[in-house]
Amino acid sequence: MHAEANILTISTIDQMQQESARLLDAGKTIAFVPTMGWLHEGHLALMREGRKHGDTLIVSIFVNPTQFGPTEDFQDYPRDLDRDVTLAKSVGVDVIFAPEAKAMYDKAYQTHVDLEMLPRHLCGPSRPGHFRGVATVVTKLFNIVRPQVAFFGEKDYQQLVIIRRMVRDLNLDIRVIGVPTVRESDGLAMSSRNTYLSEEERRSARSLFQSLQQAQDSLAEGITVAGELIHGASEFIGSKPHVQIDYIAICDPETLEDVDRVEGPTLMALAVRVGKTRLIDNAILKPMED
Amino acid sequence: MHAEANILTISTIDQMQQESARLLDAGKTIAFVPTMGWLHEGHLALMREGRKHGDTLIVSIFVNPTQFGPTEDFQDYPRDLDRDVTLAKSVGVDVIFAPEAKAMYDKAYQTHVDLEMLPRHLCGPSRPGHFRGVATVVTKLFNIVRPQVAFFGEKDYQQLVIIRRMVRDLNLDIRVIGVPTVRESDGLAMSSRNTYLSEEERRSARSLFQSLQQAQDSLAEGITVAGELIHGASEFIGSKPHVQIDYIAICDPETLEDVDRVEGPTLMALAVRVGKTRLIDNAILKPMED
Repeated sequence: MHAEANILTISTIDQMQQESARLLDAGKTIAFVPTMGWLHEGHLALMREGRKHGDTLIVSIFVNPTQFGPTEDFQDYPRDLDRDVTLAKSVGVDVIFAPEAKAMYDKAYQTHVDLEMLPRHLCGPSRPGHFRGVATVVTKLFNIVRPQVAFFGEKDYQQLVIIRRMVRDLNLDIRVIGVPTVRESDGLAMSSRNTYLSEEERRSARSLFQSLQQAQDSLAEGITVAGELIHGASEFIGSKPHVQIDYIAICDPETLEDVDRVEGPTLMALAVRVGKTRLIDNAILKPMED
Repeated sequence: MHAEANILTISTIDQMQQESARLLDAGKTIAFVPTMGWLHEGHLALMREGRKHGDTLIVSIFVNPTQFGPTEDFQDYPRDLDRDVTLAKSVGVDVIFAPEAKAMYDKAYQTHVDLEMLPRHLCGPSRPGHFRGVATVVTKLFNIVRPQVAFFGEKDYQQLVIIRRMVRDLNLDIRVIGVPTVRESDGLAMSSRNTYLSEEERRSARSLFQSLQQAQDSLAEGITVAGELIHGASEFIGSKPHVQIDYIAICDPETLEDVDRVEGPTLMALAVRVGKTRLIDNAILKPMED
């Protein structure tokens, strides 16, 4: 049923639960990478890291409807399971779990996992319900796959912080590992949504990473006031065609609450609409004395 | 560390997680009865049932602050751990897990498990936040104790339905077993809160069960209109001293939505304040033809 050189694709919750029970009964450790598919190098970095931490590496591919808002791109989100399976196989994934939405959420479905404070910041206000959808589906996937260790990209920094807090609050016995953002050669953070960008939008999209670098440079020159750093980034990004800034924030990397000054490792996070595509990026700013 | 004739009392989450991991690694099945302590025959019935279903029987004793409203009896709720341990031991409980509130909810705690529809009915409107507190703490306890099977009393029928739905929605691999209500000789449902009743209130409290029996009798005589059955119960209970009816409902036993007629097994549930004590009870009404 399950051989080293092969990859097992599972599409039902029952079969995944049975496979995980079988693995755990056999004393195997399970490493887990949840994804929405349309895999890119960022996902593959999570899987390569996962490969080091568990006997069995399980990847879920599920475009979760409950984390998309009514005006968002759920229908258009790119999907190609065959391509994803080939890529996952190339980095040593053992099991792909690709459930159907109607099995994950039956007609009487009504349970939600939600956090009080962390979703109020950064992407929360422009994406109401998004993090509730994420926290809920990740709880479900954790309960189905039953990993000892799970991997999330630092590119979705708020998501990572929320999952860490949720795991701790709900006493899930799972180690959550954040993996650094993988970037294109010009610095653009890898994202499945980059596929939506026109050539000109793609050029404007470079400004997200560039503005983070510039903020780090300004900090090195002694500018520690968050408002000044945000203003600089805003002017820079705003000068590019087709962009509309959603937010630029400088905040505590654990609570995500805004800070006035950068006095220790501090999160700078931003969301920018480039054409119709909403992109996010972030960096941990570090003052010289650290 | 753990012998058949003895009972192990654990007060930290870490130690409980280690003990459960040890038991599961050794191939033991865990049966779990969550309680708020002040154990009575109703709890002991859950434990006796639990004793039949697992190698190891774990009982939690935790007066969960988040399921009490600001005007409710959290401070006054009766507590006696020594007495509870003696009673639990007498029915063959292996492990008592009695964590501290500040360990269950640290200062940055912010995650909640909530259901959309089921908490809107019956006790939900008069106890805002109660079922969110219950669903959250039961999720936490399940994650800490990691049972294969868990036991809940039918006396808290709405709670039982909510836990069943939550377990299914969140894909928890736990069998939930409901255990029939245990009653005093005059029919009063066992409850830790019965201890609050004065002698006269105690006599009025009998009307809850009596009204359920009368409704079943009326149904046997062919009265199937929910409104008539509710009216009868309301008149009967309302004639007793010190009572104030919160609700009397006749509803679908799965969705808890009101029904107009009793045409199959149907839940009759009620909540009545007797003096300052809020009591609940319920029965499944069954028409003759079933």
